[in-house]
Amino acid sequence: MNPAQRVNLQRLLAPRHIVFIGGDSAVFAAGQCAAGHFGGEIWGLNPQPNRFGAIPSFTSVQALPEAPDAVFLAVPRQGVPAVITELREKGAGGIVCYSAGFGELGDDGANLEGKLITACGNMALAGPNVFGLLNYITGAHLWPFSHGGKPVEHGPAVISQSGMLSGYLLTNRRSVQFSYVIGAGNQSVLGVEDYLDYLVDDPAVTGFGLYIETLRDIPRFAEAVGRALDRGVPVVALKAGRSALAAQTALTHTGSLAGQDAFYQSLFDRIGVARVSTPSLLLETLQMLTAAGAPRGRRLAAFTCSGGDVAMLADCAEQEGLVFNPPDSVTKRNLRQWLPEIATVGNPL
Amino acid sequence: MNPAQRVNLQRLLAPRHIVFIGGDSAVFAAGQCAAGHFGGEIWGLNPQPNRFGAIPSFTSVQALPEAPDAVFLAVPRQGVPAVITELREKGAGGIVCYSAGFGELGDDGANLEGKLITACGNMALAGPNVFGLLNYITGAHLWPFSHGGKPVEHGPAVISQSGMLSGYLLTNRRSVQFSYVIGAGNQSVLGVEDYLDYLVDDPAVTGFGLYIETLRDIPRFAEAVGRALDRGVPVVALKAGRSALAAQTALTHTGSLAGQDAFYQSLFDRIGVARVSTPSLLLETLQMLTAAGAPRGRRLAAFTCSGGDVAMLADCAEQEGLVFNPPDSVTKRNLRQWLPEIATVGNPL
Repeated sequence: MNPAQRVNLQRLLAPRHIVFIGGDSAVFAAGQCAAGHFGGEIWGLNPQPNRFGAIPSFTSVQALPEAPDAVFLAVPRQGVPAVITELREKGAGGIVCYSAGFGELGDDGANLEGKLITACGNMALAGPNVFGLLNYITGAHLWPFSHGGKPVEHGPAVISQSGMLSGYLLTNRRSVQFSYVIGAGNQSVLGVEDYLDYLVDDPAVTGFGLYIETLRDIPRFAEAVGRALDRGVPVVALKAGRSALAAQTALTHTGSLAGQDAFYQSLFDRIGVARVSTPSLLLETLQMLTAAGAPRGRRLAAFTCSGGDVAMLADCAEQEGLVFNPPDSVTKRNLRQWLPEIATVGNPL
Repeated sequence: MNPAQRVNLQRLLAPRHIVFIGGDSAVFAAGQCAAGHFGGEIWGLNPQPNRFGAIPSFTSVQALPEAPDAVFLAVPRQGVPAVITELREKGAGGIVCYSAGFGELGDDGANLEGKLITACGNMALAGPNVFGLLNYITGAHLWPFSHGGKPVEHGPAVISQSGMLSGYLLTNRRSVQFSYVIGAGNQSVLGVEDYLDYLVDDPAVTGFGLYIETLRDIPRFAEAVGRALDRGVPVVALKAGRSALAAQTALTHTGSLAGQDAFYQSLFDRIGVARVSTPSLLLETLQMLTAAGAPRGRRLAAFTCSGGDVAMLADCAEQEGLVFNPPDSVTKRNLRQWLPEIATVGNPL
């Protein structure tokens, strides 16, 4: 990410104006954004006039009243490079490219993706083959599906190479409320490490939840994680692609090679990324680390209503190398006063 | 379990009359049973007359109109053996002993538990230190807490050494509806293998979900599991006590020694018990096996909406030794007709 791209990413993530370009998906995304609390301007763009109802709309990039800070692009894939060129010439900031059918399709798509990259110049581009981004701080949503969630002042940010996974995370009932949800898609221009690098400096972001299939720039990723941890902002990653099959399918998902899993594991261990294996664990770990902070050691105390809970907790803890030290005699005596005769005083309690 | 105990267990699980003996817990349990669809008689028993409101109540075991098939017993622990003796003399069938404070308290409690066992004779006794049992087929509920759930004609049965865990399972939102929920508690008289052995012959039971800390009679357990599998009824077990700490706390939970985990694992592998590690997995596995049956092999096909799902599925499957074979050319051609151009045809799809 060069300095010009960084400025354009800032425009994309905190836009004064957003233009939605395309048919049904763009119309839905624009309507959804207009229904929220976004304070800037919202425009639609489609060759057919009035396609966007009450939202001011235009029939060409040239006709837009100003260079848009943010663009949601959902046009047929063959037309993408030409529209992006027009947007660059107009002076647009950043683009979410919802259109798919690029590198993930093989040679023909890769050729088209090359044209897309050239057309971008220094614009910030998320995707292609991406749902988009949700900004729960300002309401600058570029997202073609219902998403729930609500405005927040701060919260963990999700950066994901899977749009559907972002969708699942957004419907969580575990009271995790996000500040940003950003799709990385094919990472043709910007990648996971760029969003991380940029958002590390945003005081509204209290933690990071990452879904990763591949990273493109390990040193930059490590440097950004280091800055996050220095600020006390935890980074939790669900890294897929352990298996040979997953590594192979990642190629056809976002055109990326998932890479050696052991390498990623040792990287995460070394730089302090908490790795999880399921979406539920991603949410719970993110919630725990952002609400309570990172644990300072391996010693735990637990309070339960059930001997069964005690047994299951003890099993889990031993597997993870955690320690339940027994209470000292004073604590034991104090607890005894509060508990019924039949209770066993111990840890877990 | 001798033949007389078996007859009494049948009386406990399919009673014509239930007497609830004790204070608040017994009153609540009786009221809850009366509010359901149980077709038999419900009585209360407390030295204080009319303690059970509209439910016919008696002030002594002797005064009961008949020998009760089932008894819910919730009196202070010291009084338990005496009441049980009176019940035996009256000719009662089976008892759920909610009262706690026996073997799990150490020597003093173990002594009292010995008296309880002697007092029982051939009565069927669940517990002590047990929530009770829920019979969703007939509504014969002996359970001192709210429990949700609804009448069914068939479904999986839960047999659990943890009452609280049964409670969690009962509040599941995964649409698993149980036929029976039976607490084993301290297993002073009847244990997990007895309930299993008995219910294996009940056509209403479509599967078993077990929470186990210890088994007392491995050959009988194995024999019952074998009969269940012969009938096509799967057995899923959450066995706690892998860790040293859990094995130690099990002693103070239900007074039982959890035993060597490796031994249990090889037992389960040999006789065909599906072992799981969390309550959620217990529910999901039970639901899968009772709804779809056991898989016949290791080959899977999966259909997703997301490349991220494909990657996560592939990772999980490889870890478990499952195989996603690619579709053959005819299947591939057929699928291609139904899918958009940008979709990748494969397995997982």
